Amino acid sequence: MRGFTPNEFNARLSKAQILLQKSDLDCLLVTNEADFRYFTGFLTRFWESPTRPWFLLIFANYPPITIVPSIGVHLLKKTWSGEIRSWESPNVSDEGISLLQDILSEFLQKNGRVGLPSGPETLLRMPLVYFNQLRSSLDKLHFVSDCEIVKNLRLIKSESEVKKISQAAAIAGRAFSRINEVARSGVQLSKVFRDFQALCLDEGADWVSYLAGASEHGGYSDVISPAKDAPLVAGDVLMLDTGVVYDGYFCDYNRNFGVTEISNRLSSSWDRLQEATEAGKKMLIPGNTAKQVFFAMNAILQEGKKRKNSSGRLGHGLGMQLTEWPSFSKYDETILQVGMVVTLEPIIDIDDEKILVHEDNFLITANGPEQISPQCNPKIPVI
Amino acid sequence: MRGFTPNEFNARLSKAQILLQKSDLDCLLVTNEADFRYFTGFLTRFWESPTRPWFLLIFANYPPITIVPSIGVHLLKKTWSGEIRSWESPNVSDEGISLLQDILSEFLQKNGRVGLPSGPETLLRMPLVYFNQLRSSLDKLHFVSDCEIVKNLRLIKSESEVKKISQAAAIAGRAFSRINEVARSGVQLSKVFRDFQALCLDEGADWVSYLAGASEHGGYSDVISPAKDAPLVAGDVLMLDTGVVYDGYFCDYNRNFGVTEISNRLSSSWDRLQEATEAGKKMLIPGNTAKQVFFAMNAILQEGKKRKNSSGRLGHGLGMQLTEWPSFSKYDETILQVGMVVTLEPIIDIDDEKILVHEDNFLITANGPEQISPQCNPKIPVI
Repeated sequence: MRGFTPNEFNARLSKAQILLQKSDLDCLLVTNEADFRYFTGFLTRFWESPTRPWFLLIFANYPPITIVPSIGVHLLKKTWSGEIRSWESPNVSDEGISLLQDILSEFLQKNGRVGLPSGPETLLRMPLVYFNQLRSSLDKLHFVSDCEIVKNLRLIKSESEVKKISQAAAIAGRAFSRINEVARSGVQLSKVFRDFQALCLDEGADWVSYLAGASEHGGYSDVISPAKDAPLVAGDVLMLDTGVVYDGYFCDYNRNFGVTEISNRLSSSWDRLQEATEAGKKMLIPGNTAKQVFFAMNAILQEGKKRKNSSGRLGHGLGMQLTEWPSFSKYDETILQVGMVVTLEPIIDIDDEKILVHEDNFLITANGPEQISPQCNPKIPVI
Repeated sequence: MRGFTPNEFNARLSKAQILLQKSDLDCLLVTNEADFRYFTGFLTRFWESPTRPWFLLIFANYPPITIVPSIGVHLLKKTWSGEIRSWESPNVSDEGISLLQDILSEFLQKNGRVGLPSGPETLLRMPLVYFNQLRSSLDKLHFVSDCEIVKNLRLIKSESEVKKISQAAAIAGRAFSRINEVARSGVQLSKVFRDFQALCLDEGADWVSYLAGASEHGGYSDVISPAKDAPLVAGDVLMLDTGVVYDGYFCDYNRNFGVTEISNRLSSSWDRLQEATEAGKKMLIPGNTAKQVFFAMNAILQEGKKRKNSSGRLGHGLGMQLTEWPSFSKYDETILQVGMVVTLEPIIDIDDEKILVHEDNFLITANGPEQISPQCNPKIPVI
């Protein structure tokens, strides 16, 4: 099924309203793509255009209101039965701001508190000049943090959300299982990237929002690079890390392949990554903290040596975005809960320059982790 | 050629520094993907992850400094020879903020002025809580608008930038010319979307960041929807609007196709869109304003009636982003200059519910417009 039932959206809204009341907030102002879609179901790639701001006001004690550019009204109505106010955008002299002002003035009393997603990994998706204008024209109100209301809601995935993430992971899995069709010694890495994305589409991806990787000898230098034109060479390790999107939800995992052969060194390092993943899995228990997962994995990866760990973490949440809270880092004290979907992403140093990374996706259940990404081969496959 | 010469980056930086001095600003703080890449060459899809902030400080009187998460250092060094400071991220207790504070304290005097891109279509890509922290710890400084310095630089494309946009447009053009391979009556629109993206990749796209469209009878209801699963039906008009990316640069144009046939009404509406495009082209002359282009096109589209024009404009800039300044709207007084790359995107109302849209891409030269997107057929092609 595409989208979500009205019941699911109602539940999200009700929970937000209860949390607003608990947090002594009168209203939540939502501006970014994932948060807006979470509450409204509005799914479009049009957010790729930075021109127009989009707003959703969730009141503690009144029905919610969206304030959107006129270009979005038709699509929004398909999933949003609440009130919609709109303006003809772009209009630099008033980009929806007077509508926002009017509504906030009407519904909120003096000293009313408007919560904005403000914490780590959040974004105010509107130009600063408009935000400053809004705040100064409404100086009777307080614009404050949303007390992580949106974060805490999105952190726990519903069954329907998990299905979509699982679907994205299955699509990528079918593409990975066809890797021999697109990758071999002599083929340009840039062509492998293009063709692998086409495989993901062929297997049912709506779009492929993320693909990074490398093909290098003895491990790779980083995991965020776009493809170079240089061809795959016998002895390389090819890594593809992909974020395939299905109905607005991501998977995020990678696979490694030996080109023609795989060295014993890389092979045993990869085994170590699997051990670290197993150690991480054992810690994916409701009640544990994110940093416990990190330390369990890191103990195996570090093995007495100081690791560089340039990525700063060994996994993270995922869902409507490629990466979400929490982080499996030494700093993150988030308590794991049933319904979180996470990646385990152990990284091992091969030498001072090169690393090897493995990544899989898991759902946290009352009985521990359930793997969402397909089981990988017991050894690095050679292509 | 991939990327840009060091000379081109140096020129961008020097121009920014001159504009900083003219604007009485001491420093520019850059946080978002396109702006950061414009100055550093840092090209990665990793910005898809919202976890980590990235910073670039361009000083009026000192060499620039990047402050980036450690995961980005290796890739950044490939294109950026300037100073790099980094921290192990994610780290919610200090997400690069103390580094920013130290550097700004060191280089700026009391009452120093830090410019931030703040105007229309810009974004502060960092959590508000960190921004507030930064501002309050540096209360000797003023965080102000960048006076549109970054906008004004990015508005004018270099020859190398135009080549990349042209390459993206040519790739999409080759994909459109193969439309018969993927689209015909009876095929699900969602499959057409997947297969068309695969065609773009096959023709050389690095990735396909945008595809929207529709297949409906008698015109379509909006231009921002993702694909439905319903199949193409004889008599539909199929529209695909795509933003293909080549080396970090977008094209943004669409094509319409009649499924099996095309009605006289749609055919003549489409002719009107071509007339409007021609009228717009005639106005793409350096010295004209953006709104003059709008009015020239709108006169033809409106023809005495009031148009809905739910998109609010009839074209826009493009380049590193799918849409950039200016807007061909009745409000936009931007003066057209040599080196701007724009779309003309006339929209015509078919009836109260349905519209038809055409879009092409142009470079503004001293001699008027040069079309970047391939010439379209003289009539709507039937598939």
